[in-house]
Amino acid sequence: MTNFHKLPDEIELEEHLKPTATNFFRDLRDRICAEFEAIEGELGEGEFAHQPPLAGMSGPPSKGHFSRKIWYHKNDDGAPGGGGEISLMKGRVFEKVGVNISNVYGRFSENFRQQIPGAEENGGAFWAAGISLVAHMRSPLVPAVHMNLRMIVTNRLWFGGGSDLTPLYPLEEDCKLFHSQLQECCDRHNPNYYAEFKSWCDRYFFLPHRNEPRGVGGIFFDYLNTQNWQSDFDFVRDVGETFLKTYPQIVRRHMHEGWSAAQREELLIKRGRYVEFNLIHDRGTQFGLKTGGNIEAILMSLPPEVKWL
Amino acid sequence: MTNFHKLPDEIELEEHLKPTATNFFRDLRDRICAEFEAIEGELGEGEFAHQPPLAGMSGPPSKGHFSRKIWYHKNDDGAPGGGGEISLMKGRVFEKVGVNISNVYGRFSENFRQQIPGAEENGGAFWAAGISLVAHMRSPLVPAVHMNLRMIVTNRLWFGGGSDLTPLYPLEEDCKLFHSQLQECCDRHNPNYYAEFKSWCDRYFFLPHRNEPRGVGGIFFDYLNTQNWQSDFDFVRDVGETFLKTYPQIVRRHMHEGWSAAQREELLIKRGRYVEFNLIHDRGTQFGLKTGGNIEAILMSLPPEVKWL
Repeated sequence: MTNFHKLPDEIELEEHLKPTATNFFRDLRDRICAEFEAIEGELGEGEFAHQPPLAGMSGPPSKGHFSRKIWYHKNDDGAPGGGGEISLMKGRVFEKVGVNISNVYGRFSENFRQQIPGAEENGGAFWAAGISLVAHMRSPLVPAVHMNLRMIVTNRLWFGGGSDLTPLYPLEEDCKLFHSQLQECCDRHNPNYYAEFKSWCDRYFFLPHRNEPRGVGGIFFDYLNTQNWQSDFDFVRDVGETFLKTYPQIVRRHMHEGWSAAQREELLIKRGRYVEFNLIHDRGTQFGLKTGGNIEAILMSLPPEVKWL
Repeated sequence: MTNFHKLPDEIELEEHLKPTATNFFRDLRDRICAEFEAIEGELGEGEFAHQPPLAGMSGPPSKGHFSRKIWYHKNDDGAPGGGGEISLMKGRVFEKVGVNISNVYGRFSENFRQQIPGAEENGGAFWAAGISLVAHMRSPLVPAVHMNLRMIVTNRLWFGGGSDLTPLYPLEEDCKLFHSQLQECCDRHNPNYYAEFKSWCDRYFFLPHRNEPRGVGGIFFDYLNTQNWQSDFDFVRDVGETFLKTYPQIVRRHMHEGWSAAQREELLIKRGRYVEFNLIHDRGTQFGLKTGGNIEAILMSLPPEVKWL
């Protein structure tokens, strides 16, 4: 794990860096939403003819568009503390995709600050901004995906994030593309990153109670601060750009393929594991629930339809 | 909260009491399963004519029968530690109902024993037996229900349990029957029980992140030991008998009523709250996951089909 002490001239730098990061998260959000809406338009209505009827729907789903919802964060003491924007699309290809950007600040509660590096030393004061995305796809042949990037400031400053793929049927060509693009991205910044962040991802997205991984992995990193903010930020940006370049290719590969009711049933069962992971283990969910985050934004990651045997 | 020191002649008593409790839990399980199967038989196939088609099903569901599965518990050190039996039925009226009896023993892990009264004082040794039931109903007009009774022995001995109702549409007649039967049951044993255990239930089955109750409540009790094992056990038995007498009446009231696809959709959304509660907050789930319990038995409580908006 890299260390994450603050930069020498911390105060001045931060105020300059914060909008640089939030502007990037917002811009990335806009470009991802535009690309996903474009994909929706590439699936013709006629392509539903060979699909089994969908639960609770009389006709085929219509072409998806993102709707946007702004939320505000309040601190425990009632003080305003920023907020965020949820972009949500329920469409033909993307059964449910949420892209949330947020920028919250204030003070962590007494209990919680012990768990966050640098938060006890300055009375729990924190600032956090990021983008978080989860896509659940209608077709059992198109993998679900998760991507998250964040910058956190307490008495220290660091980046975290990652991206990972959850296919029902892991195809070699998809896994290879997803992993190799992330590897190339990591290698552009540090020859050690990929091995470290891939293995962190495998350890993190694992359900101990099922003794199974959530998906096929990707990368996961946290507490990243090499003492060079610009190069760390360049890496974080590259992870975002790599996601935007790679995942749409995987969607377009499989979105026109037909699937059966039995495969759809399998997908709904697989999604149960996603719910179990997010509600029992996920640190982001815990972080959100414990810092009084917006409940819609936090649970945006839950699949639209799930089954348990 | 009543205290729960052990009885004076603890060692001899326990070995006599344990089979008395486990035999009751098993017998209650058998009678509940028989009653629920009888209810299944009371819904004719023709009654599905006015229902909307069910997701992923070509025809109407067939009459349910319980299937049974035995599981074994192993302690952390590999020593055998009892086990349990899951009875599961997926039917016409009961979309998914699980009735689990278990009798597990061994040693709690170092970390976990701190949370359990009396477990640190004897090296983590414990013995636990109980019955646990969750029913998710096909009709949006028939409330879901939960009932659990347990006896736990560490360096101390106590009972816990309760029963609570989760209707989508809380009807006064159902709530009144359910609550009044539990009140009469409590009053037969101690005039303070109902007020105390009802309020405990309301506090326990509450989702803070949604700021809403899971259902309409019932009773919840734990650490019950009045120094008179027999009278405590009589109360626990009465809670079980009261459940068996009351819930089937509520099911029979509504199982023949027609419902719409929109109501079913609402039910699936409501079930999401049930999942959130069980995976984020429920102590029984946490207990099971942390003591290496059987994952099928622990997650038996999850609804068969769920949606999140």
